[in-house]
Amino acid sequence: MELSGLFKDIGFIVELEKMKKIYRRTRIIGEKRRENDAEHSWHIAVMGMLLGGYAKQTPGRDFDVDKVVRMLLIHDIVEIYAGDTFAYDEAGGLDKREREFEAMDRIKRELSPENAGKISALWYEFEEMKTQEALLANAIDRLQPILSNIYSEDGGTWAEFGVKRSQIMRRMEPIRHFNDEIYAYLLDKVEENVRKGYILEDE
Amino acid sequence: MELSGLFKDIGFIVELEKMKKIYRRTRIIGEKRRENDAEHSWHIAVMGMLLGGYAKQTPGRDFDVDKVVRMLLIHDIVEIYAGDTFAYDEAGGLDKREREFEAMDRIKRELSPENAGKISALWYEFEEMKTQEALLANAIDRLQPILSNIYSEDGGTWAEFGVKRSQIMRRMEPIRHFNDEIYAYLLDKVEENVRKGYILEDE
Repeated sequence: MELSGLFKDIGFIVELEKMKKIYRRTRIIGEKRRENDAEHSWHIAVMGMLLGGYAKQTPGRDFDVDKVVRMLLIHDIVEIYAGDTFAYDEAGGLDKREREFEAMDRIKRELSPENAGKISALWYEFEEMKTQEALLANAIDRLQPILSNIYSEDGGTWAEFGVKRSQIMRRMEPIRHFNDEIYAYLLDKVEENVRKGYILEDE
Repeated sequence: MELSGLFKDIGFIVELEKMKKIYRRTRIIGEKRRENDAEHSWHIAVMGMLLGGYAKQTPGRDFDVDKVVRMLLIHDIVEIYAGDTFAYDEAGGLDKREREFEAMDRIKRELSPENAGKISALWYEFEEMKTQEALLANAIDRLQPILSNIYSEDGGTWAEFGVKRSQIMRRMEPIRHFNDEIYAYLLDKVEENVRKGYILEDE
């Protein structure tokens, strides 16, 4: 790789510091402050390492857990230019894709050609949710804030933002395909949170 | 993998939330608050992805960048039980290894057998600094706070804690082996920070 590419990549690494200043809705368990994108991305990448072996796999096809980890590490970097959009924010979700595609174009220009190709390929694969690895990565990205709400014991963002059971069930769809035991456990916990009034019943 | 192993791993994933509450000395660029272990670990794992291709490699031997990324993601998890030790804290460094080995034994008991084996193997490999991958991972782990100090433009932790040039030169040794251009760039910046009085000259 050539020198100028190396220093473009170093410049982008410094730019990534912004991920530590982009706050999600989820709160850190036991604290009042919200979680930032860097913390979230670290947590889900380690989850990919630890949970990859529990994924249902398509027989006869290789399954690349390392690719899942790489996708999880970078899937939110578009937010350094596009900002975070809450999973249950249906208005903000409308132009989310467009803002994020523009952000990825900008990121590609900031990286060396080699890394621009690798990073954007991973990001598009994650977004398209077609490969086994992208499906697992999406399941894990959704599982982490759900676990956080369950372990917060005050309903977390579900209670704070008045989220409905049907919205959560839609978010959980990739988790259903990932692992039956985890899905059954989450269903139990969702019902428990509905009974406690932390999750809204649909009309 | 059996069910009980899965739920041990899920329990440990929730335990990992503690990484978001362990603060290092490094400050977030442009902010007053310090960086936590989760943020640091995310940043260096992405650096592993972006910089792996620039590493000098031993001819005729495979180089596994994904293993570098996995090591970087987990190398600090012992700190959930052992706490953070500042790189230039020579007193705290004395019993650091012992505290961290005990923490890793505890982590192994908390994980499923499959994951206990994988995670501890990665951690020991990183600590031993013998393989190509462990050397690169260590270089990147040291590069990140140095870049942060350089880009802070007030000398960062070097100025705050009165660090000497010789201490920094020792920390930079794995970076010298990793890449000549990066090392030369850092040397320039160290000299600049000595001239500005942010780094102490040795007596």
